[in-house]
Amino acid sequence: MLIDLNCDMGESFGAWTMGQDEEMLRIVTSANIACGFHAGDPDVMAATLAAAQQQGVKVGAHPSFFDLQGFGRRQILGDSPAQIERQIIYQIGALKALAESQGMRLQHVKTHGALGNMAAEDDALAMAVARAIYAVDKSLIMVTMPGLCTEKAALEVGLPLVREIYVDRAYAENGNLVSRKLPGAVLHDAKQASERILRMLEDQALITLQGTRIPVTIDTICVHGDTPGAVEMAAQVRTLLESKGVAFAPMSEVIAARG
Amino acid sequence: MLIDLNCDMGESFGAWTMGQDEEMLRIVTSANIACGFHAGDPDVMAATLAAAQQQGVKVGAHPSFFDLQGFGRRQILGDSPAQIERQIIYQIGALKALAESQGMRLQHVKTHGALGNMAAEDDALAMAVARAIYAVDKSLIMVTMPGLCTEKAALEVGLPLVREIYVDRAYAENGNLVSRKLPGAVLHDAKQASERILRMLEDQALITLQGTRIPVTIDTICVHGDTPGAVEMAAQVRTLLESKGVAFAPMSEVIAARG
Amino acid sequence: MLIDLNCDMGESFGAWTMGQDEEMLRIVTSANIACGFHAGDPDVMAATLAAAQQQGVKVGAHPSFFDLQGFGRRQILGDSPAQIERQIIYQIGALKALAESQGMRLQHVKTHGALGNMAAEDDALAMAVARAIYAVDKSLIMVTMPGLCTEKAALEVGLPLVREIYVDRAYAENGNLVSRKLPGAVLHDAKQASERILRMLEDQALITLQGTRIPVTIDTICVHGDTPGAVEMAAQVRTLLESKGVAFAPMSEVIAARG
Amino acid sequence: MLIDLNCDMGESFGAWTMGQDEEMLRIVTSANIACGFHAGDPDVMAATLAAAQQQGVKVGAHPSFFDLQGFGRRQILGDSPAQIERQIIYQIGALKALAESQGMRLQHVKTHGALGNMAAEDDALAMAVARAIYAVDKSLIMVTMPGLCTEKAALEVGLPLVREIYVDRAYAENGNLVSRKLPGAVLHDAKQASERILRMLEDQALITLQGTRIPVTIDTICVHGDTPGAVEMAAQVRTLLESKGVAFAPMSEVIAARG
Repeated sequence: MLIDLNCDMGESFGAWTMGQDEEMLRIVTSANIACGFHAGDPDVMAATLAAAQQQGVKVGAHPSFFDLQGFGRRQILGDSPAQIERQIIYQIGALKALAESQGMRLQHVKTHGALGNMAAEDDALAMAVARAIYAVDKSLIMVTMPGLCTEKAALEVGLPLVREIYVDRAYAENGNLVSRKLPGAVLHDAKQASERILRMLEDQALITLQGTRIPVTIDTICVHGDTPGAVEMAAQVRTLLESKGVAFAPMSEVIAARG
Repeated sequence: MLIDLNCDMGESFGAWTMGQDEEMLRIVTSANIACGFHAGDPDVMAATLAAAQQQGVKVGAHPSFFDLQGFGRRQILGDSPAQIERQIIYQIGALKALAESQGMRLQHVKTHGALGNMAAEDDALAMAVARAIYAVDKSLIMVTMPGLCTEKAALEVGLPLVREIYVDRAYAENGNLVSRKLPGAVLHDAKQASERILRMLEDQALITLQGTRIPVTIDTICVHGDTPGAVEMAAQVRTLLESKGVAFAPMSEVIAARG
Repeated sequence: MLIDLNCDMGESFGAWTMGQDEEMLRIVTSANIACGFHAGDPDVMAATLAAAQQQGVKVGAHPSFFDLQGFGRRQILGDSPAQIERQIIYQIGALKALAESQGMRLQHVKTHGALGNMAAEDDALAMAVARAIYAVDKSLIMVTMPGLCTEKAALEVGLPLVREIYVDRAYAENGNLVSRKLPGAVLHDAKQASERILRMLEDQALITLQGTRIPVTIDTICVHGDTPGAVEMAAQVRTLLESKGVAFAPMSEVIAARG
Repeated sequence: MLIDLNCDMGESFGAWTMGQDEEMLRIVTSANIACGFHAGDPDVMAATLAAAQQQGVKVGAHPSFFDLQGFGRRQILGDSPAQIERQIIYQIGALKALAESQGMRLQHVKTHGALGNMAAEDDALAMAVARAIYAVDKSLIMVTMPGLCTEKAALEVGLPLVREIYVDRAYAENGNLVSRKLPGAVLHDAKQASERILRMLEDQALITLQGTRIPVTIDTICVHGDTPGAVEMAAQVRTLLESKGVAFAPMSEVIAARG
């Protein structure tokens, strides 16, 4: 079983640092790099790209609503899907140019925070994301929530896609993430989280907070870098899964291996 | 004599409009499109690109310091040339992606406001601009101030370049623009401005506020869109120059014609 | 019948202008001044205060979600009422200090755009607004939507309040404004608008888009400054109403007259 | 000998944290709270005010250029002193309102970063700072650089003032701070820093990087909270100075004690 391990990165901003990108880059196989709208700035983006390259980690864009103060976790309502599509193109384009200036290529795009959660449940928004990615480079992989609108949109637009599960986030009955504002939304125990992930991989199913199993394909696991003990949890998850025979590779190789 | 006529555009932002882009697009041959740092947003950028395409006007990026409130006219000191290079790459990349999403290609890059003025007189900054452009696409034309650091940097980096004069801005003895804060910095009379431009083209020389002639090559004329009477001035300049045998074409064609 | 005529002002930003504040200040009796979150900056705020003072127009704060690009018209979801309360205190405090530095006092507070609309229908948010105002200065008048949550919150907190109707906005059946995105939301004909307002004043009732009458107290009429023909509409409304015996005075005087 | 110990605080922003405010509040006697322009947001401001109140630490405003990405350390050139005065009034007013909403009063104002450094050497800018403070509340203490323009401006405007020295910053021959970009600008050894401060207090003189003594009055010592080991350095400085007979109190008490 071949699978990708991805992490949000480059979420520092100006004088503020966030996450332990250097450590996470030794564990994961794909990095989602913030594009300046919820975090990141041209310096942080360039440094994160360079660090990923050094560790052989593949990179992707991590676009968001424009919301530095809210870290992209607030819903911003009122823009049309076409407007949001343009905001995403802007961000992917900015990161792509920085990547190419360092001789790197983007592998994928994964939407961040509220934008990602909303797109998972809104067909028009999911299509805006898919269209934005396709418009910039139709070979970019779209990271999707299995069973939800983003998976459907990637298929409809004809983008390569991966289905993702979260190592430390609880699932609601509809297959989307439980809001961070609700109790039990974030798992903090590495062992518990690892075992849940293992079951999900073995069953090829989401396991919701209430225990329901939702059958899905799983191509990539998201570990977070901005929670306490994030690096340890990521390392433990990888070690545990490897001990059970799971192999890790960037999502482009996972897709290639699937044929 | 073949020459380009360029104008800054796409400098509206959100609910605020600036300039008369539609009208100017019927007059000019190249449009410098703001990239969101001093003006413009993804919607304005996309709409300006589309409007330029419709009028057959070639488009370029118009990057700036990140300074919405100051419209990019304030000097921001403290970033290294490498940091500014990354800020420029970010902006060009964003516009490039929006352009490509509409099936368009960027023709050129022209720095805005304080960044442009500073680069004209600072070798390290001019090199940062040239390197940023080269990193994104080495076929992009760099718009330079003739005789100043930007012209030198474009030549050193090996970018195609054009030399630009301003129709409505006075020149200082060093060949750079007179600061907008000084008296006489901006010419408001179309006839006077047109005649000055004609003399500069005939002499292939800048004429400074004090009357000094500085011999330079001239490939493109910048008309402004955000001053009162801007459209009339631009139209008059074009008409007057055409009546004197000057032909207008996008800067890429001007360069091609020069061979 | 004594009534206030209020208008949003100071909605220029940096190099961008909006509205015809000078003209509107000759017509209205109270000015709602943007505080830098959706529009305005310290220069615009100070200039608008000074212009209002010169015309004898009373001033108030016009706080908003932090959303320059969306002009405060986008809903930003995710902050708690307590967070929004602090954002409002911040903005009122900033304008209050600028006003006091010119020897002026604030008369009132009116929330802007999406924040205002949301507060009208959300008790917790309306209480956040009322608490913010009370915390800064409990003598500030809260501008409320009659019959909705903001009116209730002002009463509960113990703030002086006025009830407002809009001259150019259609009303939904629940007594709130029809969204600008819907057809018929904005009235463009001055005569029609004036006559509707007159009927509402005579009946002391909102008249909805569908013709329903909702009985309310009316203390102030809002005219907009950022729509085409805004000045003409405002002038016509004032003239028509004066011809029918309506007198205009700042909302503080309206409240005082009511006893 | 009675002296104040002050520290910049509230320099977190949104999801990003900076400094160890809780720990520093147990050591210092006055807190300079960021106002949202270089750091801080309404939530951070309110939380920092509350934490200071709980520890009995007096609070002041820490206004800056509007420069989140550069943390207020970049010079922004082009605004007039009158414009900068309004930017400062805006920031003080915002913090003042938040303070008053919690039943607190501001004690002082200290400018941040590039704005502070520039004001120290520019009479017009120093006067803009002093005028802004006076306009909001003429009883607010202005924190000044002894011997430089800010001290002079506070005296000229008639504000109460304190003269400040930095525990961890080297002094140039003109009595201003050595730029952080230059070697030796920041002292990292607590013992060395403490001893230097003690000598400066005993001599009532700045000691420059080159060893020159510049006689000045010293009322307050600034410790930084955002450098590694900052808390330890601050604690050591306080302990060492107390062991030498220095007593610490908020700057308002220091001024009162001086009579």
